[in-house]
This record gives sequence, structure tokens and C-alpha cells, in this order.
Amino acid sequence: MWMESKREVEEASRSRASFSRRLLNSLLLCNGDMEHLDEYMQDKLFVLQLAVWGLRGVTRVILANNPLSGALILAALFWASPWQGLLGTLGVLASTLTAVIMGQDSAEVTGGLHGFNGMLVSLLMGVFSSAGDWYWWLLLPVCLGSATCVFLFSGLSSLFDRWNLPVTVFPFNIIIILYLLCTGPNNPYFPHHRVTPPGALEPNATELLAVQVIRGIPLGVGQIFACGALGPSLLILGAVLLYSPLLAVHALLGSAVGTLAGLSMAVHHHFLYSGLSGFNGALGCMAVGGLFFTFSWRTHLFAIASAFLSAYADIALSNMLGTMGLPACSWAATLTATLMLLLTGSLAAYRIPIGQVRAPECNLLSHSQWKAGNTLERESTDV
Amino acid sequence: MWMESKREVEEASRSRASFSRRLLNSLLLCNGDMEHLDEYMQDKLFVLQLAVWGLRGVTRVILANNPLSGALILAALFWASPWQGLLGTLGVLASTLTAVIMGQDSAEVTGGLHGFNGMLVSLLMGVFSSAGDWYWWLLLPVCLGSATCVFLFSGLSSLFDRWNLPVTVFPFNIIIILYLLCTGPNNPYFPHHRVTPPGALEPNATELLAVQVIRGIPLGVGQIFACGALGPSLLILGAVLLYSPLLAVHALLGSAVGTLAGLSMAVHHHFLYSGLSGFNGALGCMAVGGLFFTFSWRTHLFAIASAFLSAYADIALSNMLGTMGLPACSWAATLTATLMLLLTGSLAAYRIPIGQVRAPECNLLSHSQWKAGNTLERESTDV
Amino acid sequence: MWMESKREVEEASRSRASFSRRLLNSLLLCNGDMEHLDEYMQDKLFVLQLAVWGLRGVTRVILANNPLSGALILAALFWASPWQGLLGTLGVLASTLTAVIMGQDSAEVTGGLHGFNGMLVSLLMGVFSSAGDWYWWLLLPVCLGSATCVFLFSGLSSLFDRWNLPVTVFPFNIIIILYLLCTGPNNPYFPHHRVTPPGALEPNATELLAVQVIRGIPLGVGQIFACGALGPSLLILGAVLLYSPLLAVHALLGSAVGTLAGLSMAVHHHFLYSGLSGFNGALGCMAVGGLFFTFSWRTHLFAIASAFLSAYADIALSNMLGTMGLPACSWAATLTATLMLLLTGSLAAYRIPIGQVRAPECNLLSHSQWKAGNTLERESTDV
Repeated sequence: MWMESKREVEEASRSRASFSRRLLNSLLLCNGDMEHLDEYMQDKLFVLQLAVWGLRGVTRVILANNPLSGALILAALFWASPWQGLLGTLGVLASTLTAVIMGQDSAEVTGGLHGFNGMLVSLLMGVFSSAGDWYWWLLLPVCLGSATCVFLFSGLSSLFDRWNLPVTVFPFNIIIILYLLCTGPNNPYFPHHRVTPPGALEPNATELLAVQVIRGIPLGVGQIFACGALGPSLLILGAVLLYSPLLAVHALLGSAVGTLAGLSMAVHHHFLYSGLSGFNGALGCMAVGGLFFTFSWRTHLFAIASAFLSAYADIALSNMLGTMGLPACSWAATLTATLMLLLTGSLAAYRIPIGQVRAPECNLLSHSQWKAGNTLERESTDV
Repeated sequence: MWMESKREVEEASRSRASFSRRLLNSLLLCNGDMEHLDEYMQDKLFVLQLAVWGLRGVTRVILANNPLSGALILAALFWASPWQGLLGTLGVLASTLTAVIMGQDSAEVTGGLHGFNGMLVSLLMGVFSSAGDWYWWLLLPVCLGSATCVFLFSGLSSLFDRWNLPVTVFPFNIIIILYLLCTGPNNPYFPHHRVTPPGALEPNATELLAVQVIRGIPLGVGQIFACGALGPSLLILGAVLLYSPLLAVHALLGSAVGTLAGLSMAVHHHFLYSGLSGFNGALGCMAVGGLFFTFSWRTHLFAIASAFLSAYADIALSNMLGTMGLPACSWAATLTATLMLLLTGSLAAYRIPIGQVRAPECNLLSHSQWKAGNTLERESTDV
Repeated sequence: MWMESKREVEEASRSRASFSRRLLNSLLLCNGDMEHLDEYMQDKLFVLQLAVWGLRGVTRVILANNPLSGALILAALFWASPWQGLLGTLGVLASTLTAVIMGQDSAEVTGGLHGFNGMLVSLLMGVFSSAGDWYWWLLLPVCLGSATCVFLFSGLSSLFDRWNLPVTVFPFNIIIILYLLCTGPNNPYFPHHRVTPPGALEPNATELLAVQVIRGIPLGVGQIFACGALGPSLLILGAVLLYSPLLAVHALLGSAVGTLAGLSMAVHHHFLYSGLSGFNGALGCMAVGGLFFTFSWRTHLFAIASAFLSAYADIALSNMLGTMGLPACSWAATLTATLMLLLTGSLAAYRIPIGQVRAPECNLLSHSQWKAGNTLERESTDV
């Protein structure tokens, strides 16, 4: 009896262990880049494949690459505003389909690299439009603008290829500025809001509220998708956490650094409260801390420097473009990340070649394996 | 008798056939790049050679390369305004001579590649000058500006060489913007008009006249030479037709696309009527449709996309530069054509290396010959 | 007796000759790049080494490379304003130390290449600050801005490496514009003066004073270090003379050309009197005349052309950036010098590879030696 009960307990505990192991495994399956999914999807319907490419594209905006995270982010966008969610979905699909039609490299298309610029263009066209939600004529520039992103992505990748640099969100930044310039504030068909520069003086400024400023830090992560609500922003942060905890930490850290930079330059309170002063810092911090460089304490310091640089450059560019009523979008973070990738010296030793960039945790693992392999090899050659 | 008369008739018809064949031959001799002329000119006077280089330079503005077309275009400019004709001639000569003195590559000089930027700079200095015609002091900046184009052409060609990109009209666009910035609107020596952006609101706009808009389409081809009169514009179109009918069709098509883009953005009526909204579209369409890419239905679709992109980018850049009272010149078409040349994917397969670019019809012929040769070769290796 | 006295005279004259020879030698030792100093400093204290690197950095601003000239220039700056001298010293040290920490190439650090951009940033932050001298909070942006220059220098050198181009003062120009944009004119912590464009109309302009204009020419050399006093400017010119007489001649020539260009465009009297219209011309002239190209009459002509181009481009850029209250700094000279380095044709034959650039006199010597060597070799192979 005792033995049996012991065996039962053992079995139960084993089954529990195996259950938690299976749970962990299935969780791990959803983690990182989910490359196993690509094999599984190979012989599925085109529509399903397109959905996965699109969802990967959605996460590329925030420097991740995971379809499940993409689904979470899309859910967050629909939660914040169904109209914005629709625009985002349309944008990512329009640009991915254009890439397929234009015969772009299939590895780029399946990796979602042709989706994220289109998505950002669509989202920001929606945000800046002053015609209100459900203004159906907006779908025309949304589709055309997203499709044009593929032209720019392809052209710029030829240009940047000489330095092994990624194109990142340059196409989005160019297209949205051109769109806003093209339509102008008083366009009869596609009117949009004028953007006020963050540095303009406020005549009767109220006192700064610390709670609101701290609330702006997670909002900074949401502002990467032009989303200004707290709940969806936290969901987006959760999606990044699912892809890579290290990236999520750097996102929050970068947003905090950006807020600090904003405080030091006495920008508008609105910029701090809404998270607008944080999102460039977040992007700059994420790009260096773990994604394009192997994580280490040295890379971590460079990531903080990159966050500060992105945040200050964002204030400068916002002030400049603001004189013409234009937003600075993510120009600052994009330029700073590109600069960091070009750096020589101690940071360059940690750089991961563009083709081999995975989730930060995988990068770390493959780097240590590679290092161990190198040591072993050296030892074997020594002997 | 009957036999003799028959023979006479035969002879007459033969002589008539030989006459029309000779006429066709001599017409064909004037078509395309007229490379046979270069051999003929080799041992002629320097002044005559310079004239041919200059005339080639004149046509390079409109992406053609034919001295006879150049003479026609120059005639059109003198017809529209003798002062503008004089400035254009002076500009093309000044920059070609500077290139000779500076020891630039002789193949570039004889091909007219060092003339067209200087010509455009001179023409636009004349157009924007508010000192009226026959203001002789203007010849000073015209000569200096044209000469400076050679510096920029040479420097930029070293820069662009890495991607096998042509310099096209980048020097002109840079120099004219610098000149207008340098003199400013109230300069005591070289005053010029302020340019109004196309998107500014008109307080009491009249109704749009369809006839005027359609008239703007051929004017768009003339506006490439800053010429706003219908007759000379048609003569310029005829000069393009002489070089290559395919290019002329794309010029008109691109101008129509540009007008359509202008209508969709509700630009000033003046922009549509004068052809200013069409000329960037025309240049963008010509560059892709047949010139830098072998003509096919696929290239044709990309040419239309390029025309739309050029036209919309032109409206955007005009609105931006217009805030400083500056014109957007042909920045939009130049940047779009450069982007198209950088594209990867299905368009890249049709690209012609810069050194082998001829008239579109020649490109098509050499492509089919090359293809036939390839097929033959493959067959022979198969056997 | 007579013999003895003769011997005495001989000895005296010999000792006098040897003294003057020793004086000349020790003067020659202080001339040019003083490479012998590097060997001597190798095993000295780090602080002493840092001082030499810093002093080399100070002279790099004016395209020289000589620690003694650096000490003279620093003395001139402290003479003009002790606060500016302090800022400059801090800037050059902050950026050189950052470069050491970031693991930049040691040859670049010891050559002072990481110091001059930081110094310029610090000096101009001080000049544009409207908080007055001895405003200690300014040291914060001065240190951060100087440190950021190292990031830009390193990143841009990777970018420019493809064309064998030097980075020169691009980092300074970028950082100072970003700083001024970031703080804005009404910043509560770091306020600064708005810059007026040189082309704006003066309502009641007084007559131009020829003496003042001529006084502006040596001031143009001082303005390279943002120094507007005559005495220190002459001392700076003396420091250049110590490094290389040829460079000093070109500096004055370029400043005169810049003043001429300013006169021809009727800029504000203030621009001519203060030397602001001359310093870009001086830099453009120095870069081409002897430094990056072997000196010859042909290079000399190109140097004058480069001075004119720099000066006119500076007026244009000042007018453009002035609309946003920003200065054009040395953008014009930097861009022009880069263009000149890219030129093909007869100037390219005189170009010295970036790694082998020395003082103009050394360049000339090594060029003639190399030429003589070539001729000898050719002769020996002929035989």
C-alpha cells in the first residue's frame, strides 16, 4: 500500500513535472524568432502564410520578430482604436503584397521585412488625419503609401548594402514626411493636424506631475505604434516580453532615458505625459542593447548612450521640423542606431552581422557557443 | 515599244523606291544617338566639335542624345525668348569648356555630359531673375554657375560610381538652389522672384478649365527647359520624337500622370495650366520607360509608377522649399529615377549598365540580339 | 699674433655659424608635423602625452598638426577670453579622453584627430550662449557634446572610408546644429542668441569702411576658432606660419577671397567687419592649396576656386539656416573640401592619400622625391 501510494505520488509529481516541462517547452516554442513555424507553414494556404508574414512584420516595428507577439500587438491596436487597427492591418498587408508582386527577395518577404514600414505609414496617416475616424477616402493614400515603402526599402537596401547596414524604418520616415508635405494642412481631400514643436514656450504652464511623467514611460513603448493609451501600451510591452525579456527591459530603460532627456531640456509637459519624448530613446536603446550587438555590460552602457543620443536628437529634429508643422517621427532613433552600427573601436567587436541577427537571448547563446568553439579549437590546435 | 515602256516604268519605280529608301536611310541616320557623326567630326575644327558636344548636351537635359534634336530644341528656346536662348547657349558652352580645361574624361565631354547641367542652371537663373530680359550683369553668375556644375558633376560621379548610378541633374539642382539662397529675394545686384508653394490656399479660386489642363500636358514637356509657351514646347516634343518615338510617348504619358497627381492633391490652377505639375512626372517616366531599362510591359508599368512617385514627391518638395521661397526644380524626378535604378527584384533584371545606355529603340534591339545570342549559344552548347 | 687673432676670429665666426645653425635646426624641429616628438613622448606620463595629443587636436581645427602651434593658439584663445579658452581646453580633453575610453584607433588619438571637433563644439557653445561668461552649467553640454563628437567621427569615418575621404569637421557641424536646435532660443537652462542671416536687408545702412573690411581679412583666420579680436587672430595666424608658411599664405588668401565674395553679394557690413564672411573661404583655400594636394600652380588655381565656392556656399547656407536662427558654421568649407577631394581629372593627379598627408612643405618634398625616384627607376629600367 505504502509503496503504491509512493509510486502514485512519484507518478503524480512526474506527471506534474512533465506537464510543467511541456508548458515551459510550449512557452519556449512561442519565444524568440519562432523559426520552427516557417517549416510548418511551408505547404499551407497562401492566405495563412501571408498572415504569418504580416504578423512578423507587425513585430518588426518594435525590433522583434515573432508572429504571436504580432498578434498581441495587433490586438492592442484594435483595443486602443479599431480604426487604427484596421489601418495598421491594411498597411502591413498592402506593402507585403506589393513586395510579392514586385518580386522582392522571398526570405525578406517571409521574415516580414516588407511589412513594418507600410504599417507605420498607415498608422501615422491615421493619427495625423484631421478628418476623424472611419474616413474611408484615407484608405487610398494608406494603400499607395504602404506600397511605396517597398520601393524605398528595396532601393535603400542596395545603397546601405555597402556598409552591411539594415534599412530599418528609413522608408517610413521618408514617406510619412513626404505625405504630410504633399497634402499640407489645408488639403480639401486629406487634411491633417499641424504638429507643434516640443520646445515652444508655454505661456501659463502648470506644475509638472511626477505620476504623469512616470506614466509616460510605458506609454513611450506604445508610442512606437503611435498608441497613447496605457492598457494597450502595456500589452505591447508584454508582446516584447514574450519575444525577449532583455529587449523589453531595454525598451523601458530607453523610454525612461528619453523622459529624462526631455526633462533636462524643459520640453512641453504634453510631450512627457504622452510618452512622445520616450519612444525614440526606447528604440535607440533596444537597437544597441542586445539586438544588433551581443549583450554585455559594455554594450549595455553603449545602449544607454544611444538612448540619450536618440532622445536629444529627437528633441532637436522635432524643433526643426516643427517649424514647418511636421513631426520628427523616428528619424532620431533610426539615424542614431545606424551611427552605432558604423562605430569602430570597442563596440564594433560585439556587432552581429545583419543576416545573423536573432532575439537577444539567441544572440547571446550563439555568441557564447561560438566563443567556446573558438576556445576549444584554439586548445586543440595548441595540443 | 511595250517592253521599253515597261522597262521605263520599272526603272522609274525602282528609282522612286531607291529615293524613298535613301530618304528613310537619311532619316534613320538622324535618329537615335547618331554615333556615326562622332567619327565624321574627329578631324574637324575645334569650334565645330564644340558645337556638336554642346548640341548633344542640350538634348541630355531631356534624356536624349542627338545633335539634330539639340538644334531643334535650341531653335525652340530662341523662338520662346531670344534672351533665354542666349543664356542657354552660353551655359552649355561655359560648362563644356570648363570641363575641357579641367581635364575631364574626353568621352564624357564629347557625349555632352558636361553641358546639360550648365544649360539648366543658366535657363533657370534667367527665369527666376526679376531684373528683366537683357540684364547683362546676369551673364556673370550664369558663366560661374555653369562652370561650377562641372565640379559637382565630377565629384558626384566619383561618389555615385560605387553603385553604378548616373549623376543626371543633381549638380543643376544643387547649384540653382545655392544661387537662389545666396542672392536672396532683395539682392541689389541679382534680384529674383519668390516662388509660391503649389499647395497654398487660393482665396477666390475660379473653376478649373479642362482645356487649359489638357494644354498643360504638352507644356509639361516644355517646362523641362523652363519654357512655358505651347509652340516651342511642341517643337521640343518633336525633337524628342526625332531621337526616339518611345521616349516621346513616355514624356507625354508622364506629363499626363503628373497633371493627374496635381489634380488629386488640389494644387494651384496655375501649376496645372503652366505644365509645372507635369514636368517631373515626364522626366521620371522617361528615365524608367525605355532609357535606363529595356522596354517591356513590366518596365512600362514601373515607368507609370515612377511618374506618379515623381509627381507626388515634387508637390511635397515644392511645398517644403516653397516655405523658403525656393523652387523644387527637378529634385523629385532625379531622386525617383535614382531610386528606381537602385531597386532590386524584377525591375533590376531589365536594367542597362550606365555605359551602354542608348536610345530606347537601340536598347530594345541590342537586348533582343543579346537574348537571341544567348539562346543560340545555349542551343549550341546543348548540342 | 696675427695668426692667433685670425684663428680666434675664425673660431668665433665658426661658433656663431654653429649657433645660428643650431637655432635654425631647433626652429626646423618646431616646424611641420614634429613627428620626432612622438618618439620622445612614448614613455612619458599619461598626462603629458594627453597634453600633446590635445595640443595637436587644437591645431587640427585649422588643418595643421603641431603641438607648439597648438600652445600658441590656446594662448591666443585665453588672451581673447579666458572663459572661451577654458571651454576650448575642456572640449579637446573631453573628446580625446572619450576616444581613449571607447577604444578608438590609437594612431588617430595620438594624432589629435579626436580632439578638434570637441574643441570647436565647446567654443561655439560658449559663443552662442546668451547666459554670459562663467555660467558653470554650460560645462555639462560642453562635455557631453564633445564626447558625442567621437561617436560621429568614428561612425562617419567608416562611412567615408569607401572613398578615402577624411571626416574633417562634419561631427562638429552636426553636433552644434543639433545642440542649438535642441535648446532653442528660449531654453530656461541653456539660452542662446538667434543668428541673423547675412543677406537680410539693413534699413539704414551706413557706408562701407575699407579699413574695416581689410581688417576683416586676418579676423577671418581667427573666426575659425570663433575669435573676433585682432591680436589673438594674428597670433593664430602666426601659429599657422610656424607649422607651414604655405598654409598661412593660403589662409590669408582664402579669407580675402571670402571677403570679396561677401562684397559681391552685398552681405551685412557686420559679416565683413567681423571676419565671418572670410573664414569659410580660408578653410576651403587651405584644404586644397597644399594640404590634401601637392602644391603647384594648378593646385593653387583650384585652391582659389575652392575658396570662392566655399564663400558663396557659406552665404547660401547662412541665408537658409538663418531663417531658423541657426549659423552655417563651417558646413560650406567642409562640403567644398570634400567635393574637391572627390574630383576626377587634372586635380586628382595631385591628390595625396589621406594617410600620407603632412605639412604642405613636406608633401611637396616627398612628392618631388617620389617623382625623382620614379624617373631614376624608369631610367634604370630603360638601361
